[in-house]
Amino acid sequence: MKDLKLAIVGATGLVGMSVIKVLEEKKLPIKSYSLFASKKSAGQKISILGKEYVVEELNENSFDSGFDYAIFSAGGDVSKKYAPIAAQKGCIVVDNSSTFRMDNNVPLVVPEVNFEDCYSHNGIIANPNCSTIQAMLPLKALDDKYKIKRIVYSTYQAVSGAGKSALDDLANRDNSKPLKKFPYPIFNNCLPHIDIFLDNGYTKEEMKMINETRKILHRPDLKITATTVRVPVSNSHSESINVEFEKQYELQDLIQTLKDFPNIIVQDDIKNNIYPMPINATGHDEVFVGRIRRDESVESGVNLWVVADNIRKGAASNAVQIIEKLINENY
Amino acid sequence: MKDLKLAIVGATGLVGMSVIKVLEEKKLPIKSYSLFASKKSAGQKISILGKEYVVEELNENSFDSGFDYAIFSAGGDVSKKYAPIAAQKGCIVVDNSSTFRMDNNVPLVVPEVNFEDCYSHNGIIANPNCSTIQAMLPLKALDDKYKIKRIVYSTYQAVSGAGKSALDDLANRDNSKPLKKFPYPIFNNCLPHIDIFLDNGYTKEEMKMINETRKILHRPDLKITATTVRVPVSNSHSESINVEFEKQYELQDLIQTLKDFPNIIVQDDIKNNIYPMPINATGHDEVFVGRIRRDESVESGVNLWVVADNIRKGAASNAVQIIEKLINENY
Repeated sequence: MKDLKLAIVGATGLVGMSVIKVLEEKKLPIKSYSLFASKKSAGQKISILGKEYVVEELNENSFDSGFDYAIFSAGGDVSKKYAPIAAQKGCIVVDNSSTFRMDNNVPLVVPEVNFEDCYSHNGIIANPNCSTIQAMLPLKALDDKYKIKRIVYSTYQAVSGAGKSALDDLANRDNSKPLKKFPYPIFNNCLPHIDIFLDNGYTKEEMKMINETRKILHRPDLKITATTVRVPVSNSHSESINVEFEKQYELQDLIQTLKDFPNIIVQDDIKNNIYPMPINATGHDEVFVGRIRRDESVESGVNLWVVADNIRKGAASNAVQIIEKLINENY
Repeated sequence: MKDLKLAIVGATGLVGMSVIKVLEEKKLPIKSYSLFASKKSAGQKISILGKEYVVEELNENSFDSGFDYAIFSAGGDVSKKYAPIAAQKGCIVVDNSSTFRMDNNVPLVVPEVNFEDCYSHNGIIANPNCSTIQAMLPLKALDDKYKIKRIVYSTYQAVSGAGKSALDDLANRDNSKPLKKFPYPIFNNCLPHIDIFLDNGYTKEEMKMINETRKILHRPDLKITATTVRVPVSNSHSESINVEFEKQYELQDLIQTLKDFPNIIVQDDIKNNIYPMPINATGHDEVFVGRIRRDESVESGVNLWVVADNIRKGAASNAVQIIEKLINENY
């Protein structure tokens, strides 16, 4: 096997740091790492598996030395400029930003759901939005078996999804400091506002959930609506997902279908107060599904409560899992 | 006008204290108050409009002195035992517990929505569940105009709805003390579990929303599903409400219909980041509605974000508004 080289762009951010943690856990057969960030963070020293790396400032020549893979988590502008440069130099980029997600030439991949889409990449593979990723595992399982007719998403999204400055706003409990990230306090509050507002009255986050779900499930006309909300939880997104099916189902079969799907953990024992919660999901790569119950308001429908670590499975782990599968397949 | 006498049962609880506050603000033409609570709280002194009252222990003879009205906020067991006694002695009881809500002989009333149901009372009028009350104002407005076909509720409910001990659990941020109310920490967490679990997999809170909505809107067969969730917010419930209509609508007409309804405040100016939030709703009796946007996944549907003070409009203020209207009508 050749000596694999991986670049981590945005290595000092919340997602970048989590990428490094997940890489250390997975011990992929990678020979060397290079860490890139903005000028501000250049010079920082970060250890990976006992070896120290110095963070370098990203520039147009950063990829000249030849990387096999890169994980970008430095925001849309950095991805837009540098991901094509890296790809052009033969590196396979897994990009965490939203820049390329809806590009027809870029696969949008959750490994458990549509890894085969990677095979048509042109150098860039997009990592979906955090709130989309965790929904895809149960919805793919159920779409394959019962054919989904319509989805109504309502999300309860953690603050870490908005970065370090957002966590500072959450910690600013007495509102004594100026807010860094949010337009209003998030501590003790709910903000029905994630990413920017669009002309149709939806937020960009809501449209990401709608459009990315359609692309990942290969259901371009799937009927979906979404309300995305930030809640005062530091980490792990929760989602109330109402799903209507074309086909009938038996509840026990549906639960078994979810249990059989890779990396889903069904936590649904209400007699013993077992259900998914953010405090339990944090630190894990699995998607936790519970409160599974028939929706009697439609002919065939179900309500789900889906929780996952938005920084790990919602970003870092999903990206590393893509790289891991690519390596395993010598791709 | 005769000298009106009002009894407040559960005067020392969160809702009881809010009832007193709302009564002081509204300055109803009530001549005298009597405050009742459990033995534990008896003897406490509470001032109403400058006059001091001593809290008495509730017993079977408490209503012998003849009250015109009573507001009960002392839990289901107290209501079950004492509300019929009070009613039998000629007092009109407005009951905050869930005990009588689905009783066919008891009206379930949101004053702006179905006050006329009060006229068929048999001594007891039920105050609906907090999460139901705030949804009823916009949904009544829209049902009258566009006929609702189906509702999908996802709630973001504040901790105050579970009482003082629940607020202690929220304040227990480092989890250093034993939990008093919840099975798991609520600080930094979301609990998809409000009230007890029922055999159908739903919580009692979810079934309250479904059944009470049908009763209040006089739509016994209305298709509704609900997921109710506790979030780490001290006060004011938020709700993501997805509504499907029989009839078509124009968005501006729908927004105007909401604006024209009593005690709804539309906060929906996304260009200026104006939308309802718990921190702004607390202390008010109105229901705040925003994020109003067409749901393109059905022929005629809308998404709403609805926030209100669960202790005031969701309990105390709604009860006092019922009494106020009864007094105004000499009823």
